[in-house]
Amino acid sequence: MIAVTQQSQTVHIDLGDRSYPIVIAADLLARSSTYAQCPPAAQALIVTNSTVQPLYAAQLKAALESKYQQVHTVVLPDGEAHKDWQTLNLIFDGLLSKGCDRKTVLFALGGGVVGDMTGFAAASYMRGVPFVQVPTTLLSQVDSSVGGKTAINHPLGKNMIGAFYQPQLVVCDLASLDTLPAREVSAGLAEIIKYGPIADMEFFEWLEAHMDALRSLEPAALMHAVKRSVEIKAWVVGQDEKEAGLRAILNFGHTFGHAIEAGMGYGNWLHGEGVGAGMVMAAHLSQRLGLVDASFVDRLTLLIARAGLPTRGAVIDATDNAGAYLEHMRVDKKAQAGEIRFVLIDGLGNATMRSAPDSLVREVIDACCMQGVGIQG
Amino acid sequence: MIAVTQQSQTVHIDLGDRSYPIVIAADLLARSSTYAQCPPAAQALIVTNSTVQPLYAAQLKAALESKYQQVHTVVLPDGEAHKDWQTLNLIFDGLLSKGCDRKTVLFALGGGVVGDMTGFAAASYMRGVPFVQVPTTLLSQVDSSVGGKTAINHPLGKNMIGAFYQPQLVVCDLASLDTLPAREVSAGLAEIIKYGPIADMEFFEWLEAHMDALRSLEPAALMHAVKRSVEIKAWVVGQDEKEAGLRAILNFGHTFGHAIEAGMGYGNWLHGEGVGAGMVMAAHLSQRLGLVDASFVDRLTLLIARAGLPTRGAVIDATDNAGAYLEHMRVDKKAQAGEIRFVLIDGLGNATMRSAPDSLVREVIDACCMQGVGIQG
Repeated sequence: MIAVTQQSQTVHIDLGDRSYPIVIAADLLARSSTYAQCPPAAQALIVTNSTVQPLYAAQLKAALESKYQQVHTVVLPDGEAHKDWQTLNLIFDGLLSKGCDRKTVLFALGGGVVGDMTGFAAASYMRGVPFVQVPTTLLSQVDSSVGGKTAINHPLGKNMIGAFYQPQLVVCDLASLDTLPAREVSAGLAEIIKYGPIADMEFFEWLEAHMDALRSLEPAALMHAVKRSVEIKAWVVGQDEKEAGLRAILNFGHTFGHAIEAGMGYGNWLHGEGVGAGMVMAAHLSQRLGLVDASFVDRLTLLIARAGLPTRGAVIDATDNAGAYLEHMRVDKKAQAGEIRFVLIDGLGNATMRSAPDSLVREVIDACCMQGVGIQG
Repeated sequence: MIAVTQQSQTVHIDLGDRSYPIVIAADLLARSSTYAQCPPAAQALIVTNSTVQPLYAAQLKAALESKYQQVHTVVLPDGEAHKDWQTLNLIFDGLLSKGCDRKTVLFALGGGVVGDMTGFAAASYMRGVPFVQVPTTLLSQVDSSVGGKTAINHPLGKNMIGAFYQPQLVVCDLASLDTLPAREVSAGLAEIIKYGPIADMEFFEWLEAHMDALRSLEPAALMHAVKRSVEIKAWVVGQDEKEAGLRAILNFGHTFGHAIEAGMGYGNWLHGEGVGAGMVMAAHLSQRLGLVDASFVDRLTLLIARAGLPTRGAVIDATDNAGAYLEHMRVDKKAQAGEIRFVLIDGLGNATMRSAPDSLVREVIDACCMQGVGIQG
């Protein structure tokens, strides 16, 4: 570790009485002092999954035991395929069987799925208990653990059931990324890359220069990428907590990406992989609508490829692939009265929300999809 | 109908940007003008149950069709026993299968169970869509449809999973009470009676004078009882939306009542019946703690009996009845670190939150319970 990562950096999400800090550093997770400002309670409950539990749960439990009399742990099965009610209910079973009251603090220890489910459990248990995000994946550190979106999936759509519910604190321990498989590092890079085209092309250029350093988890590069991503997200969420407008730009690449994830069955493509291919497709659509030129599409596609991500969508239906994409996209939460709302790039560093003719969208899907691509697991 | 009920009365719940009106009158439900201020959308979805659907769903649908292009209906099985995730999911299935977007307005047509479930579905669908309460039972008009508490039950506790989520409008159609079974009128009277001891003894005296008129659904009496109940609730909720303190007084009788409901299996005792017997038990506990005298306990018990409600708790465990009550009460949401918090009467018209020694609570339970009482269904 080099010196720069031993300094912790703090980014504030400014949402009035729902404001909270995001603390970024190496080796935060196991320190009691990290949690000094957490709400007091008799009990705390760590929610984690079967992959992360053996790596970090004991450390977190030990750190919390100086503050909470009882620290329980609920271990969920790992993966997006389990982001459902049955698995969510394991958290409620744990809370109720331990007699946890409405002051109990929940700690989400893991990636985006653990964070989204723990957040929704916290929002709903006794109509709301406090929670803390301790994201251990790159994707959840730079995106899902920040901003208060919580949810579970429904068989007919991803993240369809949830709440806007803000954590008390987000703890980004960069050292926890050391155990992350390369495929998941790439998935996290997708959400980092997206901040460039929608908000900050200087950051995009920095990513072009530091992609190799990021893939090898160089601490100084990680610190900058996580901090800048979280700053951009904080700026967007601070203006539009409940996605009335601006916040939707954070979903660049997600409309196409969700269609791939849903079409392939949740869990086959990682979320970040869907976003990677989805950003390429959204860039192509932006170009066909005359909003960006081909050189930008090529530049973005190259960076996504260098991040180790798929740059083409999967064929999700052999008979009518574009039709299958459109059907999935029409149940996207951003759709209104059946009209799909795409996040498009309108000049470098600037996003816009637009609908597009089905025929044009079909052309993009036909041009950007290839049988059997992108599944590396 | 006499003239007074044809004038509509409006009570405002003042919660900043979450404020909304409660409109009370006869024959509101079927009028398009009732819904003029509801949010615009392409689609609306009526949630009702199998008992209420044949009585009022067609009228409500017709009234809404002048405002919404498509009005769908989801019919839930009737009863507290169905206040669970499986039934809640019928609402999500309906919303997603009809392609409902995040502007879709939900209408809860029915009693407290329909209102609580529709409210939680609205809070959670796509992280929040607007909803309107159209309560058709006395209990839901005077209590559950007002104030934004939404929830479903968990096998280990009532209303354990939910949200604070305010409706856009509450429509109390007094004429819809004409079809209400007498047992449910009595259950509604329990929640009306509670407002006296906790906040307004003048209203309690009015109830003593008008109990017979209320049980025979005299319009002028109903209008006053509903309006005064809602006014008191609005005053309490306006000061403490999320039950940080004062709002808990609205649960007078509910701690014991929930234990009866849970102990007997949800749906065997109506909620209002549990509250009726529970208020008697809470009054006895208040007396044993020296907060009220025996004459108040007798007076309250008599009024509860005149409302057609049980005045004694059920025996929920033949071996250790008081122990079983205590166990249920320890998972009550008001409990903190295993200590039960009772809503007690501390002088007429004034409620307080207190814990009490287990031995005293056991005495009250032993004195107030009788095998096989109160189940009239």
